[in-house]
Formats: sequence, structure tokens, C-alpha cells
Amino acid sequence: MNASKPVTVACCQLAPSVGDPAHNRRVSERAIRSAALRGAQVVVLPELAQSGYVFHDRAEALALAETQDGPTLQLWQGLARELGIVIVGGFCERLEGERVANSAALIDASGVRAVYRKAHLWDGENLIFTAGDEAPPVVETAFGRIAVMICYDLEFPEWVRLPALAGAELLCAPVNWPWSPRPDHERPAEVVRVQANASVNRLFVAACDRHGNERGVNWVQGSVIVDADGFPRAGPAEEGGEQILLATLNLADAHNKRISRHNHLHQDRRPTLYGEAGLLA
Amino acid sequence: MNASKPVTVACCQLAPSVGDPAHNRRVSERAIRSAALRGAQVVVLPELAQSGYVFHDRAEALALAETQDGPTLQLWQGLARELGIVIVGGFCERLEGERVANSAALIDASGVRAVYRKAHLWDGENLIFTAGDEAPPVVETAFGRIAVMICYDLEFPEWVRLPALAGAELLCAPVNWPWSPRPDHERPAEVVRVQANASVNRLFVAACDRHGNERGVNWVQGSVIVDADGFPRAGPAEEGGEQILLATLNLADAHNKRISRHNHLHQDRRPTLYGEAGLLA
Repeated sequence: MNASKPVTVACCQLAPSVGDPAHNRRVSERAIRSAALRGAQVVVLPELAQSGYVFHDRAEALALAETQDGPTLQLWQGLARELGIVIVGGFCERLEGERVANSAALIDASGVRAVYRKAHLWDGENLIFTAGDEAPPVVETAFGRIAVMICYDLEFPEWVRLPALAGAELLCAPVNWPWSPRPDHERPAEVVRVQANASVNRLFVAACDRHGNERGVNWVQGSVIVDADGFPRAGPAEEGGEQILLATLNLADAHNKRISRHNHLHQDRRPTLYGEAGLLA
Repeated sequence: MNASKPVTVACCQLAPSVGDPAHNRRVSERAIRSAALRGAQVVVLPELAQSGYVFHDRAEALALAETQDGPTLQLWQGLARELGIVIVGGFCERLEGERVANSAALIDASGVRAVYRKAHLWDGENLIFTAGDEAPPVVETAFGRIAVMICYDLEFPEWVRLPALAGAELLCAPVNWPWSPRPDHERPAEVVRVQANASVNRLFVAACDRHGNERGVNWVQGSVIVDADGFPRAGPAEEGGEQILLATLNLADAHNKRISRHNHLHQDRRPTLYGEAGLLA
């Protein structure tokens, strides 16, 4: 990777339809092609972009689930190869033993580089999905070192630390942020947390939300691309519906954790005081 | 403590003057009395409110340092007793062996309840202060369970977790946030991090900044009182100069970590995956 070369990142805020994977593939293909045409080299799709989100029950999720050989990841692999890009998108993954995971794949021109399984499950997901037990992957791609996690995972700063300490430059996070009330003129708390996660690590973060009422659930529609200082470079979209956010980023900025003459955001950590076992040492 | 009784919290954004503790005592007394007159039961003062911040060197800090028996903590104890309030304020603490700490005292009508020493030192502070090695205290007061930390400590979400997991309802943070440029229309990153720390823990946070150019350094002047959802209830002040921010808070809200039918912000943590040794178990 040429560390000094800017990288164009896109979040495709689209509207998957629960139970209609063929439709969702068409929607994702259109968005990926459109983003690539506008220069995107890394394209992020929402959480469960392949299946939709608001399942009636576990059986419905299982019926919609795909393996890594399924038609959606096949499509995304074909597009990544054809367009020479990285795609990070969420899918309902069929595991052994009729279990399902809320997963996201990182795909580049060479194929599937990593599949991450959401480790912190939100609300009814606990009744449907098997939680992942593996730390977020950090993948060396042609465009930079990219990490992946999903939605509610972002509410655990300890989780974001792991890929940041492992050298990630850009965290791509497929999300489905359900709408909830907030004070007037306030940015969604979900976006604020993304900003804070970025700034305490000097890590770029691209969080791709969805839109489209699904079985009575609405969404923040708050996709955002945040720089290593924690400030938005694109978005937050904020109820903007269908959007492709684009930002061109110098990911090498994420290498510099020195925020003053005497401070280094990661070396200033005091893990023994936090009760950390040295797993990260 | 009556958990259902609202508590009025004040941040006194004042301008200490480096090297003039007598002046700083007068300024702090005026602000504390004014806040109490307006109903404040918990009054937060800035970091190093007793001494000022921009020391030329270690010798100057040592000359200004006070012990817990010094005139500033004596004054604050007298005021806390007289007014029946809690005061959290920063002071330059003289330690044994001619060492100094960047400390904050939590004082109530019964006297000094805790002294916290900043564990993460900012920039030139590393040349002056001895860093603390003790976790932020959580003190059961007449108005709720109050924790204390200082400024740059807030950039370490692991540090905020400790008092939150220990049952703190309100985190009082004396800060001196040096001004730095940011994009137009963006809230200071310092404030954004306070909001995120609050929301990932459902913990109230009162961060008290300062104003007043000191030896060429200016300040964000971003004092803010944030609720358990991470939204400001007072402030951010944002370059407002001298201010007393007031907010009346139902601290009992901090007891409820359930953010959905199936989620509990603290029980959803997966410490073994984060490499934590179980110190917190």
C-alpha cells in the first residue's frame, strides 16, 4: 500500500427489504456500481444488507441465511474483482448446526478476505443469532488496513480499541441504527459515539446505516465517515434516505497517534490500571 | 440518599490566574456561593483551579502546591459545610519528596471525602507532575454516588468504565481544555467524548472547563453537563467566558443500564474478549 495516496471511501445508505435477497442484491449492485463510478475504492454497505433486518423469528432468518458461497457474496466478489475495489457489507450467515450469525464480509479483488460475526447483539437479535467470539479482523488491502465491526459493537470502546491497537487505519462498520427520539438540534448519539471512537484512537471510521421503514421500524439514517480527529468528512446523513456518502481520506494520518509533544494516544494507556491481562501487550 | 430526588449540579467556568492562589480562592469562593444561591448542591470547579495551569516549570508548580491542609481545601471545606453542598475542584497537590500531583478533591459538609490524582498526564504535565496510580474514587454523598477524574483521563474510555462499573451516578471532571482548531459548526471533540462516555455507561457527567488566556494559552471554554443518554443538559458553553452552568438531574436514571428488552450496557460487555483480567468481575 502506498501510505501517502488518498483513498476514496463510500457509505451506501440503501433500503434492504426483509425477505427479498434478490431485490437486495439488485439494490446493492446498483449502489456499488454507482459509488465506484464516482471514484470509491472502499464501499461500505449496511448491516444485514443481504437479508433485511426485522425478522419475525429465528426460522425466517435461517431461511434467508447464506453461506460464504451463497449468491450475495458471489455477486459482491464479482463486483470487487471487476471494479478493483474493497466491499464491506452485512449478511445473514448460515453457520453449522442451523445456527445463524449477523456477519459482515470484507471482500477485495482476490475474494473474501474476512468474515466478522457481530459479538454484541442488539435486542431481539439475541433470540436469533449466535454471537461471534472473534475480535474484529484487520485486513491489509490495496487501499489500507481495514477493520470491520457491526452496529452495537461500536458502543463498546474496548472493542474498537482492539483493531485500533492492531494497526487498523479505517474501521468499516455496517449498521442498522433504529430511530429513537433525541433532543432537538442534537446529533444522534450513535454518530457521537462513532466520532469519539475515532478521536480516542486516531482511527478513520465509516459507518453505513440504512433507510426504509421495515415492519414498523424506522432508522436514524445517520451514515457518516469520520476522520482521525473525530470530525465528519461526509454526513451524518440524518434521515436523508437513499444516499451515497463519499470522502477522500489520507489513511496514513491514522499512523500518527502523537497528539502533543509528550502524548501518544495508545502508549498513554495504562492497561494494568484498567485490569487488562496483557492480551494486548 | 433519596434516589428519586433531583440534584442540581453546577459547573463554574472561571479564570484562575497562574501563580496567584489568593486570587484563585476569591474567584472560587464567589463562584461557589453564587452557584449555591442558585440552588446548586454539587459544584464543580476547573482543573488546577487553585494554582492556574501554565507553569513555567516544576519548581513553580512545587512552590504553588498545597497539601490537603492548605488554605484552598480549608476554604472549600468551610464553604461545603456552611452551604451544605458537595464541591469538586482541582488543585496542585504537594506530595512527599517534593513531588506534585494534578489532583482534584471531593469535599462535602463532613470534609475531604476523596482526593484523586490525574492518571493520564497531558503534554508538559509529564515534566511536572507525578501521575496517580489509583482508580477514580466513587463517593457516596448526600446527593448521589459521585466519581472524579481530570481532563485527559476522559480520553480513555477504559478509565471511565471503572467508576461506572463501580456504581457511580455522576462523574465530575475538572478540566482545562486547551483550545485547538476544529471544523466550522462542529462541537469540540472534548465535548463529543464526554457525551460518548456518558452514553456508553448511562452515567451523568459534569465537565468544568476554564477561561482566561494564560501565558498565551486559550481554552475551549466548553463546560458541559451531560445526561445518561449522552445529551447536554447545560452547555456546552463554547467560548462563553465566565459562566455558571446549572442542571437539575435525576441521578437515579444512571441505575438503569437496560437500553432494550434484551440489553444491559454493562452486562453486555465481554471482558474476556477485551483481554481484561477479571479485576472488574
